[in-house]
Amino acid sequence: MTQKNSNEPVYLLHPIGEVVKENDRTWIVLKEEYQLGLLGLDQFSSVTVIYWFDKNDTPEKRSILQVHPQGNKQKPIRGVFATHSPVRPNLIAISKCKIISVQDKKIEIDDIDAFSGSPVLDLKN
Amino acid sequence: MTQKNSNEPVYLLHPIGEVVKENDRTWIVLKEEYQLGLLGLDQFSSVTVIYWFDKNDTPEKRSILQVHPQGNKQKPIRGVFATHSPVRPNLIAISKCKIISVQDKKIEIDDIDAFSGSPVLDLKN
Repeated sequence: MTQKNSNEPVYLLHPIGEVVKENDRTWIVLKEEYQLGLLGLDQFSSVTVIYWFDKNDTPEKRSILQVHPQGNKQKPIRGVFATHSPVRPNLIAISKCKIISVQDKKIEIDDIDAFSGSPVLDLKN
Repeated sequence: MTQKNSNEPVYLLHPIGEVVKENDRTWIVLKEEYQLGLLGLDQFSSVTVIYWFDKNDTPEKRSILQVHPQGNKQKPIRGVFATHSPVRPNLIAISKCKIISVQDKKIEIDDIDAFSGSPVLDLKN
């Protein structure tokens, strides 16, 4: 397991919203206090969604540094930094998604490889 | 300023390394304990570097939700989630970089729009 030096900096992430999946539709729903940050996003056709693999947020999973890509044991083991594995020291996930609509604090997207309820950290264009 | 609810989850980021710029060359230098995570990265020509805008890590800068894109006051104000602005609630930066070489815990890259010393959080392929 990775040793942490108590003198090293730690940065804090506060979720800005969450992924919501219902009836084959998918939204990013922001907390109301972040809604102003969406101004102008409706002019774009896609958005990069940054979210957190919260189900893997344990010291054990955060200490995994090598995996079989896509969990496929036929594939040679590889460092997590050379993969998109959902286990890694900092559980950041990135997905570029097609925007269907932006309304108030909700963005409807085509789809995202995330569970409903996954915490969203940031959006970028 | 964004109100934080004391019941909401907070996620912790531990830097895995840093950006190092010297004599017109640029490296991502990992902490030794993360080096195993690089296995196989040398087979790829590029890497997505996720880092932290640590110079902006103040409650004031993290509360900014609207900016003039690229700091250009001629451009209409826009929500930070529709930009790449270095001020935003969670100070995550993402840059796709060309790999020049991978050696031990160091990756030489062509360049990155980051200060030398910027904390690196994750790498993905």
